[in-house]
Amino acid sequence: MQTSLNCIPCFLRQALEAAKENRLDDEAAAALMRRSLEHLLEVDWSSPPPVIARDIQRAIREMTGDPDPYLSKKITATEQALALLPEIETMISTSADPFLTAVKVSIAGNVIDLGAKVRHDIDVAKVLRESLDAPIDEVMVNRLRQAVPSAGDVLFLADNAGEIVFDRPLLEMIGPEKVTVVVRGAPTINDATIDDARRAGLVERFTIISNGSDTPGTWLDDCSADFADRFDAAALVIAKGQGNYETLSDQNRSIFFVFMVKCDVVSRQLGAAPGSYIIRENRLK
Amino acid sequence: MQTSLNCIPCFLRQALEAAKENRLDDEAAAALMRRSLEHLLEVDWSSPPPVIARDIQRAIREMTGDPDPYLSKKITATEQALALLPEIETMISTSADPFLTAVKVSIAGNVIDLGAKVRHDIDVAKVLRESLDAPIDEVMVNRLRQAVPSAGDVLFLADNAGEIVFDRPLLEMIGPEKVTVVVRGAPTINDATIDDARRAGLVERFTIISNGSDTPGTWLDDCSADFADRFDAAALVIAKGQGNYETLSDQNRSIFFVFMVKCDVVSRQLGAAPGSYIIRENRLK
Repeated sequence: MQTSLNCIPCFLRQALEAAKENRLDDEAAAALMRRSLEHLLEVDWSSPPPVIARDIQRAIREMTGDPDPYLSKKITATEQALALLPEIETMISTSADPFLTAVKVSIAGNVIDLGAKVRHDIDVAKVLRESLDAPIDEVMVNRLRQAVPSAGDVLFLADNAGEIVFDRPLLEMIGPEKVTVVVRGAPTINDATIDDARRAGLVERFTIISNGSDTPGTWLDDCSADFADRFDAAALVIAKGQGNYETLSDQNRSIFFVFMVKCDVVSRQLGAAPGSYIIRENRLK
Repeated sequence: MQTSLNCIPCFLRQALEAAKENRLDDEAAAALMRRSLEHLLEVDWSSPPPVIARDIQRAIREMTGDPDPYLSKKITATEQALALLPEIETMISTSADPFLTAVKVSIAGNVIDLGAKVRHDIDVAKVLRESLDAPIDEVMVNRLRQAVPSAGDVLFLADNAGEIVFDRPLLEMIGPEKVTVVVRGAPTINDATIDDARRAGLVERFTIISNGSDTPGTWLDDCSADFADRFDAAALVIAKGQGNYETLSDQNRSIFFVFMVKCDVVSRQLGAAPGSYIIRENRLK
């Protein structure tokens, strides 16, 4: 999807929050805002929002000299998710429809997002526990359920650190032997990298690959050739999170998008309120 | 007060809303956003926020070719306020402390603001009817009450169209013989001009003067010399609205600021939640 004019103030809010998050002093924060304004004047507004956000995050890393400014937040989110996981796994296994519940849990985990305009002090455990009752398009859940057994391989495009812990039950149901989990090629906001996947305990169970990019989404122009080949060849692609939706929604192949609506622009586009649980298929091949 | 970095995204939100309000097409809206970004890079961020907003509003007027783009909204707000006024006047006259209630009603009217980040579909009548119960600093209300009789002349810096209708009861108590109502020199957002004061029925009862400026506040550098002299000489100055607070809070004279908190930046500065009723004296001469 293209960047909306409504995203412009939001990028600057994101830059401002990144400045606070990284404790930039007033002068450095003002410099980041200036740089973000300049950047917004230079970039192509027909790019998807994560591509523009990528460069703001690069500026943050450059200005702080910190290659992974959200590391401590990511570690905390992962630890909290791991502590909650056993309870959530029981909730899934004792539910009437464990696959449906695993999909909902995966979406609920998408609430862990330091880029979106949501309350950062959100009660993740509460969202996870209540996900069982969240409304979702069950027709689409069934379509995904039916697509899995016949797919020889499944590419699962992961989203954020912490969130990926709550993808584990769904990944187990898809099957460790056929699923490959794709993480970002370098830190950007709180998006999951290989290190975050390791901390989340995914590395022992699943094949993990990097997409080679630091975009908080999956922007193929920016990804490694290896990943692009895997993406084209995969029998089934599941893309987690709004950033992956924003960057892949115009792709001409089947993709299951699984995420929570995070902002008014996507909310209007999908006709679904912020916070809604979304599962959508892009298009059949 | 100086512009905060937190105001930067807000200016762009304001530009975006102005584009929608004035039904700019996509191309013109994008041009306005670009111009606003450029402007934000050029201006001095130590200026108060209304001075920066002024130039964005100038761009809107230039791009639409409309000298008063909010005219119809201002007329509607004024008509609605006039229809409600008799009921509110009765509420004031039958209240335990009519002066206190008149101050609260004047502040409640400040909810009519097309520049602030508030819901524009707010129920003005409800806010007015409930203003009787709004908490306020009664010590400061009493200080204003006591300052009026001894003041030879009172300068009342008005804020928005529609809102000024609800200033009438307070202005009557201060006394038409000693009060001069100051309006903006030209249209900017929904701020009140001479024409709006006429529609509000103020012209027949009170002396109305223009400040000579199109800033949505009172920025003395921008005002006419006549107004600046009046401002310096006035025995008592009452400044309505957050825009007047933002532009005058550093002035070295006594000013009574009377407004509703509209944004997080001012909320943090004053330690008062958005929506709070504020009455503050700047400083004694």
